[in-house]
Amino acid sequence: MIKPAVILASLMLSAACQSPAAQAQAETETITEEPAIWRQVSPENLLLINTIHGQTVVELNPDFAPDHVAQVRALASDGVYDGQRFYRVIDAFVAQGGLEDEDLIETYPTLVNENDRPLSEAGFVPLGNGDMFAPEIGHIDGFPVGRSEEIGREWLLHCPGAMAMARDTDPDSGGTEFYIVLDAQRYLDRNLTVFGRVISGMQYIQKLKRGDRAIESGVIQAPDQGDEILSMQIAADLPETGRPAYRVMISDSPAFEDAKTQKRVRGNEFFYRTPPEVLDICGFEPPVERISELVALRP
Amino acid sequence: MIKPAVILASLMLSAACQSPAAQAQAETETITEEPAIWRQVSPENLLLINTIHGQTVVELNPDFAPDHVAQVRALASDGVYDGQRFYRVIDAFVAQGGLEDEDLIETYPTLVNENDRPLSEAGFVPLGNGDMFAPEIGHIDGFPVGRSEEIGREWLLHCPGAMAMARDTDPDSGGTEFYIVLDAQRYLDRNLTVFGRVISGMQYIQKLKRGDRAIESGVIQAPDQGDEILSMQIAADLPETGRPAYRVMISDSPAFEDAKTQKRVRGNEFFYRTPPEVLDICGFEPPVERISELVALRP
Repeated sequence: MIKPAVILASLMLSAACQSPAAQAQAETETITEEPAIWRQVSPENLLLINTIHGQTVVELNPDFAPDHVAQVRALASDGVYDGQRFYRVIDAFVAQGGLEDEDLIETYPTLVNENDRPLSEAGFVPLGNGDMFAPEIGHIDGFPVGRSEEIGREWLLHCPGAMAMARDTDPDSGGTEFYIVLDAQRYLDRNLTVFGRVISGMQYIQKLKRGDRAIESGVIQAPDQGDEILSMQIAADLPETGRPAYRVMISDSPAFEDAKTQKRVRGNEFFYRTPPEVLDICGFEPPVERISELVALRP
Repeated sequence: MIKPAVILASLMLSAACQSPAAQAQAETETITEEPAIWRQVSPENLLLINTIHGQTVVELNPDFAPDHVAQVRALASDGVYDGQRFYRVIDAFVAQGGLEDEDLIETYPTLVNENDRPLSEAGFVPLGNGDMFAPEIGHIDGFPVGRSEEIGREWLLHCPGAMAMARDTDPDSGGTEFYIVLDAQRYLDRNLTVFGRVISGMQYIQKLKRGDRAIESGVIQAPDQGDEILSMQIAADLPETGRPAYRVMISDSPAFEDAKTQKRVRGNEFFYRTPPEVLDICGFEPPVERISELVALRP
């Protein structure tokens, strides 16, 4: 999901070898493009999941799921997930991780579901076309959202990269076991609580060791075991200097409209047959950039 | 995408330790469930892609793309792809592999595209609900298909696991460079030729090393390089004993209807809010089983 990030990084690396004047100019060039397009993700909402494959970065969404975010933040800050595993990973479905041990799970409170909420006053930006699962779809703060005027509710979608809370049959039984959506699972919308979305490093989730869905619902069986969560941290808990920082394109900006249009209207000559002008909301990745190198260079 | 396969395999492994009578019974039990539900994939249409991550199995579709299948078969039989690489892999988009070297590519003929064909007489099984990209959708022989009565054409879809031929701007310029779809890319339908689909081991494609889309369109840059295609073979070229064999559920069978209904209608109590009764054709995996252990046990 990172795109211009690496370009930014290499720009900064070469800037470090330049004269102070040239360096200042490089920073200015980067800053001038920022104003109304980007929103920096608060470090309190930046969840870092480190595995042997690499670092996956999740933006938490306390507006939609305040209690879930508070609990996951606390668990991550306490290091409870460190050394635990992605123990149930089903290709094209979800990668589930957490504490696995039922006795351990029971030491933490279960949460009342936050599957949906009343329609919000502002911030919703319609996608611009229909959807098969929800009456209305669009984005709020870069998160894909479904809405229904009829029932007066809105909810986060189970698109690839959505992070949500697993549960038993009781809708209020989740608390520690989370999953990250691999292929879209829209039928789970409003049945489970989505509380974040991967904004970088989804490829490392895709590399996680798989289980077999037909055997114990995909739980990886002993003596084999799922890939380890080396650590799971909140960026705000790390020293400010050098910690990862990301910015997300503002949903209610012309640049975001342009990004959607580029994916919906395929005007270039490669497409000798014009595709239908339609966008699957789960196939559109709201633009994200890593900005930590930039921050690190500033005084 | 394999589900009951591993159960079958373990059944067979334990059967091998049983008396001949028990072994015969185990075979009979498996065989009695076969008749009208399964179609064994012809070994000429079974393409095996071996990487360090594991074996990915593709069913080729010579009915839709005869010239593409003939060329890929010939290239695989000649070992041309062996030792080549997946050199352009973009997360959530496609994994592209092939010969990479333009001089080498030019030694093989380019192919007239086989993006779509006239509506066929029979074999099309409607999915049972609408779609955002095509007037009509469903399956033919387990392959997801789009159709339009208006233009009188039908085509294979760019769902996850679709294998298709890359090309330049000229629609008839592909010939050796192929890609496998990661997340659905339906806007590519009818613009590029899909000639097969992954029926097993999609997880190993998901594990391939990624490039960065922003740098040279995702081509992995030196000194790094993409994961190697250790070998790419047609099953028919391997000794009959012990070669992989697969069967695909017949699209026009009650079992296939049941499989779709199970995914479309979520009746169990876990879903305390009933999801919309709709199926995304790219989110439905037509059932496939590995049967080679079974075959190997027969006289």
